[in-house]
Amino acid sequence: MVQRLVVVGGDAAGMSAASQARRRRRPEELEIVAFERGNFTSYSACGIPYWIGGVVDDMDTLIARSPSTFRERFNIDARIHREVTALDIAGRKITVHDHDNGRESTEGFDQLVIATGATPIKPDLPGSGAEGIFGVQTLDDGLAVHRAIAELSPRTAVVIGGGYIGLEMAEALSRRSIDVSLVERLEQPMSTLDPDMGALVAQALRDVGVTLFTAEPVVAFETWGARVRGVVTSERTLDADIVVTGLGVRPNVDLAKGAGVAIGTSGAIEVDHRMSTSAEGVWAAGDCAEKFHRVSSRGVAIALGTHANKEGRTIGMNVTGGEATFPGVIGTAVSKICDVEVGRTGLNETEASDAGFDTASVIVDSTTRAVYFPGSAPIKVKMVVEADSGRILGAQLIGREGAAKRIDTLAAAVWNGMTADELINMDISYAPPFAPVWDPVLIAARKATQAAVQGTSEQ
Amino acid sequence: MVQRLVVVGGDAAGMSAASQARRRRRPEELEIVAFERGNFTSYSACGIPYWIGGVVDDMDTLIARSPSTFRERFNIDARIHREVTALDIAGRKITVHDHDNGRESTEGFDQLVIATGATPIKPDLPGSGAEGIFGVQTLDDGLAVHRAIAELSPRTAVVIGGGYIGLEMAEALSRRSIDVSLVERLEQPMSTLDPDMGALVAQALRDVGVTLFTAEPVVAFETWGARVRGVVTSERTLDADIVVTGLGVRPNVDLAKGAGVAIGTSGAIEVDHRMSTSAEGVWAAGDCAEKFHRVSSRGVAIALGTHANKEGRTIGMNVTGGEATFPGVIGTAVSKICDVEVGRTGLNETEASDAGFDTASVIVDSTTRAVYFPGSAPIKVKMVVEADSGRILGAQLIGREGAAKRIDTLAAAVWNGMTADELINMDISYAPPFAPVWDPVLIAARKATQAAVQGTSEQ
Repeated sequence: MVQRLVVVGGDAAGMSAASQARRRRRPEELEIVAFERGNFTSYSACGIPYWIGGVVDDMDTLIARSPSTFRERFNIDARIHREVTALDIAGRKITVHDHDNGRESTEGFDQLVIATGATPIKPDLPGSGAEGIFGVQTLDDGLAVHRAIAELSPRTAVVIGGGYIGLEMAEALSRRSIDVSLVERLEQPMSTLDPDMGALVAQALRDVGVTLFTAEPVVAFETWGARVRGVVTSERTLDADIVVTGLGVRPNVDLAKGAGVAIGTSGAIEVDHRMSTSAEGVWAAGDCAEKFHRVSSRGVAIALGTHANKEGRTIGMNVTGGEATFPGVIGTAVSKICDVEVGRTGLNETEASDAGFDTASVIVDSTTRAVYFPGSAPIKVKMVVEADSGRILGAQLIGREGAAKRIDTLAAAVWNGMTADELINMDISYAPPFAPVWDPVLIAARKATQAAVQGTSEQ
Repeated sequence: MVQRLVVVGGDAAGMSAASQARRRRRPEELEIVAFERGNFTSYSACGIPYWIGGVVDDMDTLIARSPSTFRERFNIDARIHREVTALDIAGRKITVHDHDNGRESTEGFDQLVIATGATPIKPDLPGSGAEGIFGVQTLDDGLAVHRAIAELSPRTAVVIGGGYIGLEMAEALSRRSIDVSLVERLEQPMSTLDPDMGALVAQALRDVGVTLFTAEPVVAFETWGARVRGVVTSERTLDADIVVTGLGVRPNVDLAKGAGVAIGTSGAIEVDHRMSTSAEGVWAAGDCAEKFHRVSSRGVAIALGTHANKEGRTIGMNVTGGEATFPGVIGTAVSKICDVEVGRTGLNETEASDAGFDTASVIVDSTTRAVYFPGSAPIKVKMVVEADSGRILGAQLIGREGAAKRIDTLAAAVWNGMTADELINMDISYAPPFAPVWDPVLIAARKATQAAVQGTSEQ
């Protein structure tokens, strides 16, 4: 009998699951239907700021596979403008709202993948319902910002929140010759980095003309008719023809919750290592699904395309008789803010303390290439280790061209539970165009080994 | 009583040992004397091709620390033009020949570091003693080539041997507007890569105008008086105003051998994990010392500055009461040939077979950045895994800007004994300016996982 796999959500997680399942099962064995409430499937959400900033010309290049590609090349019935509004696990069916004609229908499934993603957190403040305030998570969100810029030619923009998305959007808007202010509630942007590292990101933004207001909570929005026209902080009112919020995202778990599927402590859908939810034959992946953090051993909600893809692939194997597991995450992330490359992996000092670790940390300054080699650029590496044992709990780096991808070496060290002392002698590559003879990563390991023994945090 | 540490050889390995020892012991506790037969201490030998090619302007920038810096800042008595000609282990003394005045003297030691480096292999062929034939290993070697170019303004050069040094020198000479031919005995250059990968390097060299002659052994040199003027291969005679050999190096072990210190199967000095030779209180590091290959479990002779530094540091700790170990190497190397970045780690297919592994391998094509991101460049990753287990034995990659340092992620995987299947889900970084959502490294792991099970070598 033909089995039916239904996927809710047509971006990275859902469509990875669908594609992987299709690779392993022919249409005669497994029917695959995917429902997406928006306009697009399988796109690079991470590419949105670059498209808005004009670094990437064409929105279509962000789309890996359209619904018609899925239908024609993969025999996956991907339907857009279809919102799944209810889930009946016992009855093995979902309710689908068709945004094109307003009708509702019921669709049966044998196995279900919940890949409903996440929604930007909106501030709940006076005026926050006004037009012109945008979160950026889906391609539809991005399209809305892009249209607003084209139609309104805004002169001023305020970005609220200095996380990755906020910073990338601040840069993007600034590239469109908009006068951009960034408002951050905390002492400095990029709070996923420790303060000493985040300060360097702040400087990079200022260097491209973004005005930063830190330690300033937003208290209200000024409006002009239905539209926003200003952002009121604890200190001042900033003109804002448009506002972009980068306040993080909330996993979309209403569908799962409504059906009695267990939600984890992080607020995302609880899953086991196979990406199965608490309900038999119901799976979850991507931004809506909780991840196991391998260093803190806690459930976390992290919205990243790379996890979504891997988790989707895991489900695609498991729904077709495989025994795949997703081993969790370690919080690796990387970003380019103007010319500055920023990376992090594992736990930062605050997270490590919260997780109960006794830590030591070091920061080292080095260069991306041999110091005498043209194009050699500064790089700063921070390493957080467990006191005494020297186990690497996390690392952060910031630098110019050539810095970012070094975080992967550190991620591999964290992933494998290496100590700083072990890392010192790890055989990584050296040649003058690519590294000093002691790679910055290894220099950090040397200093961290000393700090672990001494129990100090050397700055 | 003041102890005396004597170091033979003033480059990376020896001076790392000296510097590390000094960090841990004051001059009142430990006297440190280093003897270098050449003109320079602590320089970047890897930087020589870039200086000869004019990429790096000033030779002095290649020198990290001069003898006077060692004396004045570190209280290390570094003496150049002093060749150590004999070692008496039982008597705890060495014989030193002073090249400045031709005199010999005897110096006592409590502990000795042998860091005598390696010498370029010279072909033993008719005419091979002629002037104008250069190997490039020390800075003095590099200086000789640089002077020859300045004084003779050569129009033609032949590079013999297509290893890293040969290729880098071919590019360097070509940058000096010299008409360069590269002659390689094997089917293609870069034999540390498998043939399918090495072919791409060959193309890069041709693209910058180097003429390649492969599968052509050199049989003789044509001379004009004392000077070389041509290279005779099995097929033809090539004009050569200068010749550079890149035929690998031979560890300098005569001093050690003469004193009865054990030599390993690789031809380099046998050492244990503490870098101790067979003689009590006599240590060896760098190009002259054998390394333990962690994947093949064999002794190997690999001449690389990064190992020399780490081994020297290990000795510096051990001669001052520490208990440091050097855990071995996995053959990681990286190079930039024109615009092409090349990296390798672990064992290639041939080496893996020689070491008794049953292997499978894959090659994947991907991009260095998200495919839609400006500057996205092709990258090719080859992964060699053990059949059945899927353990990653080695990897090779080749690509444009942004490719090379990815070898470190693969090196970390090999170092930690990861399987391809484990690597698939490792949490490495993703953002459009730095990687596609599936990093090329992870794509290779995906395909290798399949190949390991199927036992195939997919090309």
